[in-house]
Amino acid sequence: MGPKALDYESINENVKKVQYAVRGELYLRASQLQKEGKKIIFTNVGNPHALGQKPLTFPRQVIALCQAPFLLDDPNVEQLFPPDAIARAKHYLSMIEGGLGAYSDSRGNPGVRKEVAEFIERRDGYPSDPELIYLTDGASKGVMQILNTIIHGEGDGILVPVPQYPLYSATIALYGGSLVPYYLDESSNWGLDVNDLRQSVAQARSQGITVRAMVIINPGNPTGQCLSEANLREILNFCFQENLAVLGDEVYQQNIYQDERPFISSKKVMMDMGPPISKELQLVSFHTVSKGYLGECGQRGGYFEMTNIPPQTVDEIYKVASISLSPNVPAQVFMGLMVNPPKPGDISYEQYHRESKGILESLRRRARIMTDGFNSCKNVVCNFTEGAMYSFPQIQLPPKAIEAAKTAGKVADVFYCLKLLEATGISTVPGSGFGQKQGVFHLRTTILPPEEEMPAIMASFKKFNDEFMEQYA
Amino acid sequence: MGPKALDYESINENVKKVQYAVRGELYLRASQLQKEGKKIIFTNVGNPHALGQKPLTFPRQVIALCQAPFLLDDPNVEQLFPPDAIARAKHYLSMIEGGLGAYSDSRGNPGVRKEVAEFIERRDGYPSDPELIYLTDGASKGVMQILNTIIHGEGDGILVPVPQYPLYSATIALYGGSLVPYYLDESSNWGLDVNDLRQSVAQARSQGITVRAMVIINPGNPTGQCLSEANLREILNFCFQENLAVLGDEVYQQNIYQDERPFISSKKVMMDMGPPISKELQLVSFHTVSKGYLGECGQRGGYFEMTNIPPQTVDEIYKVASISLSPNVPAQVFMGLMVNPPKPGDISYEQYHRESKGILESLRRRARIMTDGFNSCKNVVCNFTEGAMYSFPQIQLPPKAIEAAKTAGKVADVFYCLKLLEATGISTVPGSGFGQKQGVFHLRTTILPPEEEMPAIMASFKKFNDEFMEQYA
Repeated sequence: MGPKALDYESINENVKKVQYAVRGELYLRASQLQKEGKKIIFTNVGNPHALGQKPLTFPRQVIALCQAPFLLDDPNVEQLFPPDAIARAKHYLSMIEGGLGAYSDSRGNPGVRKEVAEFIERRDGYPSDPELIYLTDGASKGVMQILNTIIHGEGDGILVPVPQYPLYSATIALYGGSLVPYYLDESSNWGLDVNDLRQSVAQARSQGITVRAMVIINPGNPTGQCLSEANLREILNFCFQENLAVLGDEVYQQNIYQDERPFISSKKVMMDMGPPISKELQLVSFHTVSKGYLGECGQRGGYFEMTNIPPQTVDEIYKVASISLSPNVPAQVFMGLMVNPPKPGDISYEQYHRESKGILESLRRRARIMTDGFNSCKNVVCNFTEGAMYSFPQIQLPPKAIEAAKTAGKVADVFYCLKLLEATGISTVPGSGFGQKQGVFHLRTTILPPEEEMPAIMASFKKFNDEFMEQYA
Repeated sequence: MGPKALDYESINENVKKVQYAVRGELYLRASQLQKEGKKIIFTNVGNPHALGQKPLTFPRQVIALCQAPFLLDDPNVEQLFPPDAIARAKHYLSMIEGGLGAYSDSRGNPGVRKEVAEFIERRDGYPSDPELIYLTDGASKGVMQILNTIIHGEGDGILVPVPQYPLYSATIALYGGSLVPYYLDESSNWGLDVNDLRQSVAQARSQGITVRAMVIINPGNPTGQCLSEANLREILNFCFQENLAVLGDEVYQQNIYQDERPFISSKKVMMDMGPPISKELQLVSFHTVSKGYLGECGQRGGYFEMTNIPPQTVDEIYKVASISLSPNVPAQVFMGLMVNPPKPGDISYEQYHRESKGILESLRRRARIMTDGFNSCKNVVCNFTEGAMYSFPQIQLPPKAIEAAKTAGKVADVFYCLKLLEATGISTVPGSGFGQKQGVFHLRTTILPPEEEMPAIMASFKKFNDEFMEQYA
């Protein structure tokens, strides 16, 4: 009898091709060490609550009441919940038929989608249509669905920044498409040169690839850069000229740590540019409850907004979303709460404002501590984290270290990161997991460890690094 | 310039091929009518809370506390929550690092997976390994991931019962595989003849298809039958002989409305059969928090258990699950609560028992009312709903009705169901959405409308049907 359907040799080769470094060799080793009793600092995933960030009180009060609506009838409810949380819970329960335990429409609850549209309108100053906003189980699931809609096979190319968040490389591999890389320029703070884009597209076309879409991650992951309005205009103009759809990954739009380049959405830039671009460029923008000051990763809530996508395609996306019935409903409520926070004058406003501001200000300080810490290390250079949740220092490995890695059968940055993990418990992701130029090495770490622990972590890193560099000098 | 990436003509043709009737033409028309103010009875999806089934109190108390852990420090908490709910919330929070807002391991929280394994052991009397249990955002997502792992392209066939739940046909189309139908025999209460299976496989092979796996839905959807142990043995033996993996969709295992054939899992039957089958047959079994007496569809919680799947494949499945980081964490807690309900002696036991028993007993009565109601109608014959949540009556349409449907450009059962919807507000799914033998027509309805409304709904159905039959006699 031949191999069985689920024997390794039988399974879908696209599944085998997938690489996903954020939870790859380093993560598995770190989990192993943790089991053995070692203290691990998990900075491999942007997972703020896992590193001690407290959830905001108001959204959690509202969701608790929505999950236990019988509390609303209890005369003691006001002893545990403020009146505006009670009112907000009633608001969501009134618009969600059957409550959180019922499947919603496969696109998400219409009322929440309306609140999202209003948020986008306030943010961008342009109309947004709830019918073109779909809620998802986290932004990743939305990205996967759109890529599945675009990709037929390996003849379809998707322009992806390098370094990139491996969601894109992994999903493109899973659906059998071709990743077309464009390199971000580390020496100009991870900026993007449209001439390089043009070259990437030309090269892909010469290989018979139809380049169909471009992924823009802004603020950048793992690189942390915030794109300027001028740069975004160039990029969108390029996409229009080259007939590319745009996938705007804007999940870090609240995570901005400098004042020169505030976040600006691709949608706004495109609308500002006017016709024909504003009326013809196909854009899908993604957002999430997992980042920003909410950081509610485990709830798995996200949305995407479609601009200039023909109705027939919108319907197809709806149909495929229907197969898994509906995104989880509690996270839909979190999305509503994220886009519609307490307002000045509300009872919970002050606490909400204090908590959220505290998180963002601390992240800004941590970004600075981390960048400065890395730049104080031997053979390490690091751009400032302008936004997002990551630091992506370049580690200039000496030839002896590269040689030692080769002997150990490891990629050089994996070798370095494994040694770092064993020595310090700091669990990072090697730069090769995000793609990088040949012979250049990085690692990615989140800026999420608690602020008070940051100096000790950076000292521990510096000690390891400087000894490593000495050892392999 | 050519078509754009997201123009209908450009997108992935597998996406276009997907059909998903449960939220298809009938559902869209029903939603439209509802918007226009008509009272609609949505019996198209097994969505109990949407039709008024109340969530069980205890799980909702626990999840509310897990979402708002600060309540546990409030001196007034015991005025709103019983001590065992408080204890259980502390139990989950102690084993979920970072709480519900942190990504879990991509396979789900290890502690919950252990509780699931213990549940399976109690149920089947055989060991279950938590490392081979993966939590998912509902069972559908798990099924989709396993099918994506198996299917390379149209040369890969999956045996699927007809009539079937369209999750399977839709997912197989999306991933570009081939559906190999096997017909359930309506005249023997939707039983399954292994000789028919053999024929289906032979026919597919003659067309160059490698049949890789067989889907067993037990209790059946939409057909409601419960497979006997003897029948399951025959089927598993057949799969072993034919080298097929088995996908055991057992999401309705709690929904049993007769006493002759209690639920028995494929895992148990296979283990009872002993080697070589118990050691070699590849089985993936699916379960959910959406059905049974929980009915927590909107939470999107599920699991699958893998038996005899090689470790390398298990790792590949883990890797792909990692792309979307983790299943939603609140639903993981619901899964823990489902497999580990309050025990006799616990403070909440009596209430939990009363609520859950009440739901199942009422469903049993509703299954009976509905079957009897259908069988009292002209040209309608209906098997008793032995399990699951659906009734699947055969509608014997007169030639004149078939002719009228053709004139209207509709499939005959769609025509009938649309008329039913317009006349009564009852939103069903035409049998053609599930597949059926040529010239035979059905509809699927859930048995979920509130028990007290059931007589009126069935009277309304009968009135419509009998007039329809008269009109087209």
